[in-house]
Amino acid sequence: MPILELSAADQTLIASGDTALLDIYAALPPGLYPPFPPVELPGGLSGLLQRGGFAQNFFFAGEILGVTFQAPSGRLVRAGGRVVKNVQGYDLTRLFVGSFGQLGEAVTVTLRLRPGVAARQVARPGSLGAGLGHRARFIWEAQGKLHLMHFGHAREVEAALAKFGGEEVSAPADYRPLFPDGIGPGEGGPLRDLRFGWANGAAPPVAPALFSKVAAAL
Amino acid sequence: MPILELSAADQTLIASGDTALLDIYAALPPGLYPPFPPVELPGGLSGLLQRGGFAQNFFFAGEILGVTFQAPSGRLVRAGGRVVKNVQGYDLTRLFVGSFGQLGEAVTVTLRLRPGVAARQVARPGSLGAGLGHRARFIWEAQGKLHLMHFGHAREVEAALAKFGGEEVSAPADYRPLFPDGIGPGEGGPLRDLRFGWANGAAPPVAPALFSKVAAAL
Repeated sequence: MPILELSAADQTLIASGDTALLDIYAALPPGLYPPFPPVELPGGLSGLLQRGGFAQNFFFAGEILGVTFQAPSGRLVRAGGRVVKNVQGYDLTRLFVGSFGQLGEAVTVTLRLRPGVAARQVARPGSLGAGLGHRARFIWEAQGKLHLMHFGHAREVEAALAKFGGEEVSAPADYRPLFPDGIGPGEGGPLRDLRFGWANGAAPPVAPALFSKVAAAL
Repeated sequence: MPILELSAADQTLIASGDTALLDIYAALPPGLYPPFPPVELPGGLSGLLQRGGFAQNFFFAGEILGVTFQAPSGRLVRAGGRVVKNVQGYDLTRLFVGSFGQLGEAVTVTLRLRPGVAARQVARPGSLGAGLGHRARFIWEAQGKLHLMHFGHAREVEAALAKFGGEEVSAPADYRPLFPDGIGPGEGGPLRDLRFGWANGAAPPVAPALFSKVAAAL
């Protein structure tokens, strides 16, 4: 089991970069949630960070409290830590989130967990488009169905899913078989969230030269 | 007037780095708020970003959508932009927030604004300490008084300030005269927030060597 350390009191989780997303869901006590929905995607936690998250309707990088990564140079870079309020400054953590592999692989990741006494996930036929005014914490489109997932106080959860309809989803989905050649941002694929379409075998976005220069300095 | 562009529809503001914090408050239409309380501090907006914000009880860097800064090399670095959901990846914006001058000065900053139909600021004698369970958006200690400020729905504002007591504060404070030799994190100074004490003439925290290496690459 690759999960390293759960602190329910601090509402933080330290996990190895190769941890599967659903293994994190399985390891959490009732009432605590990670910053991703209960689905499995290629590359586990490290892959998720490299791609900048999945399905979030909030600022994903703010939920990553720290990351230790092995830079392409081989150097082990420790960034951030188990501190919720980003006290330190000089923060390299956010550089890793959305780096699409330019900064190497995450070795360990410290996630902020958030509490919820209630949680629901619903799905109905549909697609992401303009005017989707939903406040659900996670919103995504998978194989022609639109999914919303939210957790929080019971009343918040009802409000976030109100007027959406659809049917309850209770089993986590494993989307890995949809991406035999890897997952990347692109059109025409089986998944879409508020940031990107996600397609099988799609290459990462072209990195700005300056970002590559920074990556080479690590 | 150094403010460059306000978009009330997008809830974003682009301002030059030398813009005074209270000039931003003065320029905003009723019902929109920036990610700092109505106080003036040394260095204007650029200084605020370099220090990682002031008084926030939330993730400050997530409210900075983009920054153009002049690196010590002289290079003008454009990071992020006017996009709320951090779509792009390869994000150098967060590197600037809390960089304490290592990455140079902000030339222009794009702020996320947030709506509030109500806003209140209260103060009473007291100091920041353990067990301060307040959810107010901004919390700080100034010259022996504890300040809370919140905006949002009227009911949220009342809830955030409940049981605190104190008296209403309506005039913005100019704290610049308290820091004739510059402001830095340190004990014994006239200001304190949830991250640091702020003292006159205090030096920035020592930067990790790797952060300096990254800064030198820009």
